[in-house]
Amino acid sequence: MTVGSTFTAGVIGLGSMGLGVAQSLVRAGVVVVGHDTNDAQMAQLAAAGGRIAVSPEAAARQADAIVTVVVNGEQTEMVLFGEAGAAPAMKPGSVILSMATMAPANARRLAQRAAECGVLFLDAPISGGSHRAASGQLTVLASGSPQAFASARPVLDAIAETVHELGDEAGVGASFKIINQLLAGAHIAAACEAIVFAQRLGLDIGKVYEVIKGAAGNSWMFENRVPHILAGDYTPRSAVNIFVKDLGIVSSIGHAEKFPLPVAATALQMFLTAAAGGMGGDDDASVARSIARATGVSLPGNDNKG
Amino acid sequence: MTVGSTFTAGVIGLGSMGLGVAQSLVRAGVVVVGHDTNDAQMAQLAAAGGRIAVSPEAAARQADAIVTVVVNGEQTEMVLFGEAGAAPAMKPGSVILSMATMAPANARRLAQRAAECGVLFLDAPISGGSHRAASGQLTVLASGSPQAFASARPVLDAIAETVHELGDEAGVGASFKIINQLLAGAHIAAACEAIVFAQRLGLDIGKVYEVIKGAAGNSWMFENRVPHILAGDYTPRSAVNIFVKDLGIVSSIGHAEKFPLPVAATALQMFLTAAAGGMGGDDDASVARSIARATGVSLPGNDNKG
Repeated sequence: MTVGSTFTAGVIGLGSMGLGVAQSLVRAGVVVVGHDTNDAQMAQLAAAGGRIAVSPEAAARQADAIVTVVVNGEQTEMVLFGEAGAAPAMKPGSVILSMATMAPANARRLAQRAAECGVLFLDAPISGGSHRAASGQLTVLASGSPQAFASARPVLDAIAETVHELGDEAGVGASFKIINQLLAGAHIAAACEAIVFAQRLGLDIGKVYEVIKGAAGNSWMFENRVPHILAGDYTPRSAVNIFVKDLGIVSSIGHAEKFPLPVAATALQMFLTAAAGGMGGDDDASVARSIARATGVSLPGNDNKG
Repeated sequence: MTVGSTFTAGVIGLGSMGLGVAQSLVRAGVVVVGHDTNDAQMAQLAAAGGRIAVSPEAAARQADAIVTVVVNGEQTEMVLFGEAGAAPAMKPGSVILSMATMAPANARRLAQRAAECGVLFLDAPISGGSHRAASGQLTVLASGSPQAFASARPVLDAIAETVHELGDEAGVGASFKIINQLLAGAHIAAACEAIVFAQRLGLDIGKVYEVIKGAAGNSWMFENRVPHILAGDYTPRSAVNIFVKDLGIVSSIGHAEKFPLPVAATALQMFLTAAAGGMGGDDDASVARSIARATGVSLPGNDNKG
């Protein structure tokens, strides 16, 4: 882009993360053109100062960058290269920022297909939740060519507090995200198991939270999620279904690589149990509510939907 | 004890934790009389300025407090109430500090038996490792009567940076320790699984450590143990066998309470695999080495004993 000209970004996928990304871009003075299959999400973008497009292709025509914030690798491939996809309509030298969690092999294939269209590709999965997306404070686990980083910079500056530059090839960012999600999901499952067990043992779980927070048993997720359980508040900040998806991706990569992941597999089953129990759209701390329901333990709020 | 008089503490069990506790007591001006079944450990106590006793009973005769730092509830019961046990020889109103990880029911029974001997009992499991034991910076998860706390105060002041006062009955401290160990063990297992998987995916695991440390996948154990893996250094700061024991206790309490603990059970199997592979006495980060050996992944140091 010429200095002084206006940077235009197409945002494909306007769920809570994509909408947050779009809001941060608008606030930074970027022209945002967004698309989602859900009209209500597009209305929210319009209310936030973005333009709406009828297809990924339409969003791509004037864009300096396309940001894909959809569910997984398959959806990313569809919105980029499927019917009315964005990539073939993009300007030469413009850049795709691919933010969904996906297998490294998928990220590498998308980068290859982007190159065939003459556009740059940044493997750029994000971490931080919808609140940090909206406040421009995401962590980006990025890999790609120096040109891809340079072209993506106005987007990264607008949405991220921290950009980890992890390598010059697609797939590395995806791999780092996979490792983070393995640990994050395992830690949520462990936190939920421990807190419901503590309740069964008759402990004051508020005190358990305070003690463990300062002890060797602490994790980022324990510290962040247990307050939801203590408050009995399962309003989704990040939903059970996100980890059903992400630990599913982790497990399938393990399978593809012939690598056993017993902790991740166990945690996935616990998220699946919560989803099976109708809590898929609720906060991921609902794994505790799911365990409590199964074991007859009463938690704060006692909202077991039972 | 009379103001100005010298406080005497008997320390039963002089492994790395017990020896550290004894050293901190000596440094604080407490007269320490120690016993261990291993003569070499008693020689180390003598070198550190403590006196040695031929039995728990002998250590107890002049003691204002008896500190038990043995392996589990069964050993604690034996050194207190078995042949030549400490409790019957203790002065009226003196106090037992029970520091081993054990089932809450065991802690309650020991307190009951102590009361029958006319001595006070503080359920006082510790956290922090041998280095913090020796520097007087342990965390103590304590419960017991106000009198037990008061009588134990000179010991607590000498050995602990943080004393959590968790209730006025034995068993509560033990329960908090169980919850902490469940999480700590699960987090070590998850950290080891994630790091070896990252290596298999071809990532720079030093960079993985730096990125995850600042991300939602972090845990106290990830941050503390992964450097051992990166350095290929499995000198035991805390051994695999400690978590074989502690997660075994966690699982048996779950069984006794009819409460499923799938994450803890999975982690226990991973520690057992490492112990089965001959790494029981090595640092607990050896779970990574155990996974690496089984899966044919090369880690720093490459010391797979294979």
